[in-house]
Amino acid sequence: MNTEFTHFDAAGNAQMVDVSAKQDTHRVARASGCIVIQPEIWKMIAEGSAAKGDVLAVAQLAGIMAAKKCSDLIPLCHPLALSKVSVTFEMDELLSCVRALATVETVGKTGVEMEALTAVNVALLTIYDMCKAVDKSMMMTDIRLDEKTGGRNDWTR
Amino acid sequence: MNTEFTHFDAAGNAQMVDVSAKQDTHRVARASGCIVIQPEIWKMIAEGSAAKGDVLAVAQLAGIMAAKKCSDLIPLCHPLALSKVSVTFEMDELLSCVRALATVETVGKTGVEMEALTAVNVALLTIYDMCKAVDKSMMMTDIRLDEKTGGRNDWTR
Amino acid sequence: MNTEFTHFDAAGNAQMVDVSAKQDTHRVARASGCIVIQPEIWKMIAEGSAAKGDVLAVAQLAGIMAAKKCSDLIPLCHPLALSKVSVTFEMDELLSCVRALATVETVGKTGVEMEALTAVNVALLTIYDMCKAVDKSMMMTDIRLDEKTGGRNDWTR
Amino acid sequence: MNTEFTHFDAAGNAQMVDVSAKQDTHRVARASGCIVIQPEIWKMIAEGSAAKGDVLAVAQLAGIMAAKKCSDLIPLCHPLALSKVSVTFEMDELLSCVRALATVETVGKTGVEMEALTAVNVALLTIYDMCKAVDKSMMMTDIRLDEKTGGRNDWTR
Amino acid sequence: MNTEFTHFDAAGNAQMVDVSAKQDTHRVARASGCIVIQPEIWKMIAEGSAAKGDVLAVAQLAGIMAAKKCSDLIPLCHPLALSKVSVTFEMDELLSCVRALATVETVGKTGVEMEALTAVNVALLTIYDMCKAVDKSMMMTDIRLDEKTGGRNDWTR
Amino acid sequence: MNTEFTHFDAAGNAQMVDVSAKQDTHRVARASGCIVIQPEIWKMIAEGSAAKGDVLAVAQLAGIMAAKKCSDLIPLCHPLALSKVSVTFEMDELLSCVRALATVETVGKTGVEMEALTAVNVALLTIYDMCKAVDKSMMMTDIRLDEKTGGRNDWTR
Repeated sequence: MNTEFTHFDAAGNAQMVDVSAKQDTHRVARASGCIVIQPEIWKMIAEGSAAKGDVLAVAQLAGIMAAKKCSDLIPLCHPLALSKVSVTFEMDELLSCVRALATVETVGKTGVEMEALTAVNVALLTIYDMCKAVDKSMMMTDIRLDEKTGGRNDWTR
Repeated sequence: MNTEFTHFDAAGNAQMVDVSAKQDTHRVARASGCIVIQPEIWKMIAEGSAAKGDVLAVAQLAGIMAAKKCSDLIPLCHPLALSKVSVTFEMDELLSCVRALATVETVGKTGVEMEALTAVNVALLTIYDMCKAVDKSMMMTDIRLDEKTGGRNDWTR
Repeated sequence: MNTEFTHFDAAGNAQMVDVSAKQDTHRVARASGCIVIQPEIWKMIAEGSAAKGDVLAVAQLAGIMAAKKCSDLIPLCHPLALSKVSVTFEMDELLSCVRALATVETVGKTGVEMEALTAVNVALLTIYDMCKAVDKSMMMTDIRLDEKTGGRNDWTR
Repeated sequence: MNTEFTHFDAAGNAQMVDVSAKQDTHRVARASGCIVIQPEIWKMIAEGSAAKGDVLAVAQLAGIMAAKKCSDLIPLCHPLALSKVSVTFEMDELLSCVRALATVETVGKTGVEMEALTAVNVALLTIYDMCKAVDKSMMMTDIRLDEKTGGRNDWTR
Repeated sequence: MNTEFTHFDAAGNAQMVDVSAKQDTHRVARASGCIVIQPEIWKMIAEGSAAKGDVLAVAQLAGIMAAKKCSDLIPLCHPLALSKVSVTFEMDELLSCVRALATVETVGKTGVEMEALTAVNVALLTIYDMCKAVDKSMMMTDIRLDEKTGGRNDWTR
Repeated sequence: MNTEFTHFDAAGNAQMVDVSAKQDTHRVARASGCIVIQPEIWKMIAEGSAAKGDVLAVAQLAGIMAAKKCSDLIPLCHPLALSKVSVTFEMDELLSCVRALATVETVGKTGVEMEALTAVNVALLTIYDMCKAVDKSMMMTDIRLDEKTGGRNDWTR
């Protein structure tokens, strides 16, 4: 295992690491995460998606737009020209949660893990925002990278 | 329990809800959340905080700055002049996790729950970013509102 | 009629005009505008709003979010804490157009005309973006302020 | 004619479409649009451009800067490294309007139609902002794409 | 003299300091700074301001717009609703420099020193940008606060 | 010496110059600048860097993040995918100043001088912000480009 933080130089200074010499390759990252919601509210969301008052449609757009702001939010993250962003949702009635799944792609010098994770986080935050008037106890959980490909080392959970 | 989503009008249109008639009151929100990290990396973070290569100092600033961007990220969130933002961390060795805690205050017409949650999420994402070269399996979890005061109804978890 | 541009000082320098001494009042602005679309595509939009693939839901959010970015886009526009933003649409089959209508409110020192107009413009641009693969000839037209109240002088078209 | 909205997947989810496999080509888009102004104010603008108090110089910069913010405003628009942006104006005394014309170029995977249209819209909004103290009845009209080249299909109005 | 950094808590954590209890007062800050330029280029700028190709008009707008972004740039700076921003220039032929002067006002809980300084810095950077093709040796200097009023303690250089 | 401002066309219109035909090359820029501080405060900063309350760690991150916002701040600056940003500091006790040094790299069509200068300016502004409660008389000075390589002409001070 690599045992150094790449975002610090030898003197401990935070830096945006040098990727100038890296190749432009086609990179993909997938991430996901859940928000646990009271069953009564969970049903309102599930019904809304099929009718008027669509919480998930708002969260979907918020997640997609947030992926584009990732390098503005994460201090040492490189700006990248994203070539694809998608956010979808799975409704898990048993666990009374909504799972957000994001896929981000680029042709560039660094991976897009942070963009996929940011899309998931902001999608979940948006669900929280839209439901908080009826349920403040919601909890976001299991937010994680699921897969990345296209860099030096592929990785899958 | 309120059983309507306030962010939609009667026809199902998403909207930023009208708070024009609300009073400016002193509002506070506190939120928290965890990132679970491999023990070896957890130790690197714990040591870094006392020496050179300080992951948490970067995450702290990222969280504070993200609170200020909240209304830009969450589509139906009102822009607010924040009067305080703080982000701190607790190192939990037993659970091998870092807990981020955010407190946000304003004197305004709406609460700052979303700002506090956004600060937590972006602080955790920044920890992920800085450690991902050595551990991609980290998981963000237990992200939640802990308390809000100053609005019509106070709320504590 | 006032016959001076208030955004320039006596020497012709552009400036953000001084509103320090103005009262905080409840201000409302309404604006609207159209995008003319080929009838075949107009029908796709009309149908989409009732089913899957909802162009107007995306444009609605884009318009609301753009109102919050107005002072970032318009160089001499004052930043304001908006207290309400809504964007709705009217489908005009006769003219084969979609009309976007925005209402913006604040309790502040300056009016929100620019915020309402920005919401309309970006909502229409988003409709253009989503339909441009099937119709590049769309035209945006009739974008205008409809009403403003709450300042020194109310105004209605 | 293509009869599907490319910004939705088969299930109706909004997405930023995948352009990963597209070539980087030199792409150009030109757009234009008008703002109709009372003759007395039209003259003030025309004179200002030759002297002190230059409304169009402000609008020109606002349009150029807005082109760079396009992917932040239009939810499903790809971020792009623009290689040229220009905004110019034509004064049409007969129609008592100002016409804004924008040209945007990139070497990239998607076209820059939205960037050119955004530059036009924000340039016109800025003219509105600077003249609204003397004329609130101005109307923006005829905003449209004029030409695009460099993609799979060139297009000219 | 106060001998503590207010932006850190007792444990050394960076924070946006709590101003919740402060009064909204009318606050003004003035700042200035210079850019030293080769005499030949200095003349081009001086002439441009009276004719076509106006470097200072661009720098003026850039400075005004930057004041509005201050809390986005300076990590621990409070967001504020600015009520006035102006940027002007003095041409000093003897020193072959351009001096930028900014005045910023607000009615709020914290001062606007950083907004005024940011306006000056970005105005000077913009002059550098527009002249760098002909002179890379320019130097920015003497950037400083000149006066602040409206807080607990007024201050003048 | 080139004797035209490239950011204006023949008619004096400001424009983002056309770099479409330029090659993507590896470009590096280095800039630096100082802030002069009272000796007592200078010591507090020097000690803070080794202990709790680290002014320079905050300024370092602010500078790095500002480099990514450069094209948003400087009106005619091209957006670029930066491949490296670093900001470091030198403590000069004799002159009682802190010197910020920034290095920015990209593989792209235009140089990154403005990004490096913006990083320096915002790092210095952040030091000012964090120390202004104890010393308002600080002055920023000697902000300049030190070197650029990778374009048509290399340049070193």
